Amino acid sequence: RCHQPIPEMLDPPFLPFCALLSVLGFVCVAFVSAWCQHWRGGFAWDGSTKTFNWHPVLMVTGMVVLYGAAALVYRLPPSWRGPKLPWKVLHGALTLAAFILAVLGLVAVFYFHNAHGTPNMYSLHSWVGLATVLLFSCQWLTGFSAFLLPWAPAWLRALYKPVHIFFGSTILMLSMASCVSGINEKLFFSLKNGTTEYKRLPAEAVFANTLGVLILLFGVLVLGALARPSWKRPDADSPDSRQ
Amino acid sequence: RCHQPIPEMLDPPFLPFCALLSVLGFVCVAFVSAWCQHWRGGFAWDGSTKTFNWHPVLMVTGMVVLYGAAALVYRLPPSWRGPKLPWKVLHGALTLAAFILAVLGLVAVFYFHNAHGTPNMYSLHSWVGLATVLLFSCQWLTGFSAFLLPWAPAWLRALYKPVHIFFGSTILMLSMASCVSGINEKLFFSLKNGTTEYKRLPAEAVFANTLGVLILLFGVLVLGALARPSWKRPDADSPDSRQ
Repeated sequence: RCHQPIPEMLDPPFLPFCALLSVLGFVCVAFVSAWCQHWRGGFAWDGSTKTFNWHPVLMVTGMVVLYGAAALVYRLPPSWRGPKLPWKVLHGALTLAAFILAVLGLVAVFYFHNAHGTPNMYSLHSWVGLATVLLFSCQWLTGFSAFLLPWAPAWLRALYKPVHIFFGSTILMLSMASCVSGINEKLFFSLKNGTTEYKRLPAEAVFANTLGVLILLFGVLVLGALARPSWKRPDADSPDSRQ
Repeated sequence: RCHQPIPEMLDPPFLPFCALLSVLGFVCVAFVSAWCQHWRGGFAWDGSTKTFNWHPVLMVTGMVVLYGAAALVYRLPPSWRGPKLPWKVLHGALTLAAFILAVLGLVAVFYFHNAHGTPNMYSLHSWVGLATVLLFSCQWLTGFSAFLLPWAPAWLRALYKPVHIFFGSTILMLSMASCVSGINEKLFFSLKNGTTEYKRLPAEAVFANTLGVLILLFGVLVLGALARPSWKRPDADSPDSRQ
């Protein structure tokens, strides 16, 4: 079965879209940093709430923005020509950087909880978030073993590739759900009293809610770009992924 | 560009998968109902928390389970043969039922808030949730106008169809994020004191967290099924959607 060409009106060029997405990703990182710096007291590594503040910044930067950028590497037209290996290395390096930021983000919240005698891993946010990072670690290791190490046979790569692609999108969706539940939870924790109550919608609440909406917009645009047939590498479905 | 056949090992038949998904959807509805009945005091329509309890049940049933079922109508092999109109009507009817449940679920939470003088629409959960239902209303109306009413020209249907498919998956993703943030928020509200504190992970918290995980699993499986090329109606990409 062959794809029909999608009408041209609905097929915008990838690079301007990519530029828009870069701006949006940068805005997400700027928003989460500004929220923690301006309203939540800034950053430190001493077990205080300033340590916690690294958690949202590192998770949004790693699990959403860098992860999204890494997912789109094979959609860059230059990656369609010449050897695939450099692009694989770039994809692996970007996802590894995203993973390291995510692990540091987890360390920040465990350090903060342990310093305050707060239990870990009780909220649905923590369950979904940790499951997402664990899935990501499996995804990275299996991807590295199958696609970058030289000894996986072509049939195994062909078999595993759709699984890798499916979990790639799934992990981003789970990251988005984790971010929304985490921002929501943090605002209920932080905005409890007097005139800054969350339900009175102070400036901080509007700002952090907007951050949540921007993260969802970024994630949905990345997933939409990944699903668009005309933006896929022309040999995307070929089993020859061997380098 | 033609699709290569996906290796058979990774291409399970649709109907057993569909049966598994039906069981999982049923379990999600049973879990959210049992949570509200057993731990949250049951159901009523009097402005009390028993009115609120309709909110999670109706949203999960409508925006996740019925919505997911409706999305998969065109993946049923019988829908690939014969006239398309009955399947379009079924898709439209199931999504309409899902939409009606979602609206009733919103009425329940607004009624509850207004009866208690609680402000509406301040949390990120409420922003994402309402945006999801509003997107769904646009999606239903444009889908009905373009695909069920007879006067949309074939070129317009062909142009709009990928947009409809993209927003179909996007709305389900946003529903999943809304459910996770909503369950998380409700548990922080409800489990505040003494031995039932959320952070002590009482039975209710484990149960409702598990509900959140099951909802994500259901949604991810629906999105995976929608994305699988070999489960798509063979003429899925043809612009001839006219009946």
